[in-house]
Amino acid sequence: MNERDALRALAADLPHAGDDAAVVDGTVITTDMLHERTDFPAGTTRYTAGWRAVGASLSDVAAMGAAARAAVAVYADEAFDREELDRFVAGAVDVCEAVDAEYVGGDLDEHVEFTTATTAIGRVTDAGGVTRSGARPGDALCVTGEWGRSAAALRLFTKGEDAAVERANELFRFTPRVADGLALAPSATAMMDSSDGLARSCHQLAEASAVGIELDRDAVPVHPAVEEVAGDSAERFELAAHFGEDFELLCAVPEEEVAAVGAACPAGLTRIGTVTAEPETGAPRVVADGDPLPDRGYTHGDE
Amino acid sequence: MNERDALRALAADLPHAGDDAAVVDGTVITTDMLHERTDFPAGTTRYTAGWRAVGASLSDVAAMGAAARAAVAVYADEAFDREELDRFVAGAVDVCEAVDAEYVGGDLDEHVEFTTATTAIGRVTDAGGVTRSGARPGDALCVTGEWGRSAAALRLFTKGEDAAVERANELFRFTPRVADGLALAPSATAMMDSSDGLARSCHQLAEASAVGIELDRDAVPVHPAVEEVAGDSAERFELAAHFGEDFELLCAVPEEEVAAVGAACPAGLTRIGTVTAEPETGAPRVVADGDPLPDRGYTHGDE
Repeated sequence: MNERDALRALAADLPHAGDDAAVVDGTVITTDMLHERTDFPAGTTRYTAGWRAVGASLSDVAAMGAAARAAVAVYADEAFDREELDRFVAGAVDVCEAVDAEYVGGDLDEHVEFTTATTAIGRVTDAGGVTRSGARPGDALCVTGEWGRSAAALRLFTKGEDAAVERANELFRFTPRVADGLALAPSATAMMDSSDGLARSCHQLAEASAVGIELDRDAVPVHPAVEEVAGDSAERFELAAHFGEDFELLCAVPEEEVAAVGAACPAGLTRIGTVTAEPETGAPRVVADGDPLPDRGYTHGDE
Repeated sequence: MNERDALRALAADLPHAGDDAAVVDGTVITTDMLHERTDFPAGTTRYTAGWRAVGASLSDVAAMGAAARAAVAVYADEAFDREELDRFVAGAVDVCEAVDAEYVGGDLDEHVEFTTATTAIGRVTDAGGVTRSGARPGDALCVTGEWGRSAAALRLFTKGEDAAVERANELFRFTPRVADGLALAPSATAMMDSSDGLARSCHQLAEASAVGIELDRDAVPVHPAVEEVAGDSAERFELAAHFGEDFELLCAVPEEEVAAVGAACPAGLTRIGTVTAEPETGAPRVVADGDPLPDRGYTHGDE
């Protein structure tokens, strides 16, 4: 069983699992694990790793439309270098501060590979937590920020030059969209973060909501860094739509509320398509400019 | 830098870290990571692993005198076997139910070794969270339950016979002392769980509270399973005091409240010693029957 099937099986067993985060008595809780080999390319500083790992969990809190409160992390490595550990903690503290949360420590563990497990908690607002399952035909499909920054970062890490690696580290240190999630919570009918890329996230949101999606490819906001590394518009769309790990928000918003709620999003809100009625069996669930958009990630290749 | 020094360094940096759990706005949060190689002896079932891993985090909630609310876990392995995963989740669900908490899922991750990272949250009562640092000279030093069960379990796992392994699994599935922690919270001046063993925990509590401790060796309640595996009383004390991972509570309680609060502890409360004034520099901090009790664990051997 692969990770995706196993996750689906788990979600069926646990009523609170399967969304970006669980909600218990108004408290949102979410946890992730990242590894050096798979998640931190050569050149990733420990500061960036701390920022990004804790940020990934805070992004799940944001995706529920909740206020971030605190985060903890387990830092596991073969040995503990005080400076590296301090840098990791500094990154964790700084990403928490960026979203008005508090980094409150965690645990250390000796392990064969640098691995970190992060957990964030938050509080849902009076509007309640926003799940993936409430999108309605006619809603506008919107995204925060700009897409493809992690894809661009990965290419820059591969270059290995100091300046490229430094730029890649900057790109890896995304701001979790907590403020945007809070602004969107009262309006959004469905919301999630984009861990698996825009295309796959569209499929997940559409499936959870039992709707279809029509996407306008040219409307997808592409991060300027993608221009630096991509040759043509097809490659830019590939990096922006299929790579993932941008930790932006994807949401459905009633058409008449898009302008007002968008103005309240610090990262900006872009309308990239429309929620449609659930397609008939066999018809594509997500369509981009009239063509089926495959449910495909970029790096993971486990379609 | 070893794990212990690194933890001390971290605790100095982060005001909320260093105790069993952090408290943020009345919410307790705590996280741990366990590995197959170091934490789950051959013969440990996935059901036991799920119970024990999530139980370890719930024990930290108990140690704060807080009510447990929910837990999450990351389950990382080379591959995902549906039955093993289901058993792990069943263990996690059952240990949560045992302490009136809810298991709300988590994440899966492909990894070189079976590894689990668990996080539990809880709520402190009106009495507030109980830390390690409030013990006062004259307080009674008390423990919940019986000690040495994990040490006994490890010896039984090593035997490898089916009956011994089954018994070892049972011993590994401890009940987190949440109900006891709640009963103790209004009275205890200091409290912690015993991850590192009784001896080391006494040193940690005494150091955090700037006090000394006088221990009565014969008063330490030894788990019946220890009798099955230990030859004499010295070995029994070694297993009960220096092994660790029993996840019982160690606490300081005003003398006049011991009887009443003990009666409210489902696991039972035993007075094993007395809190004394902080010893002078160079004098032993923890004394057992007049002799210094070394700050030493059993398995870890990293004194």
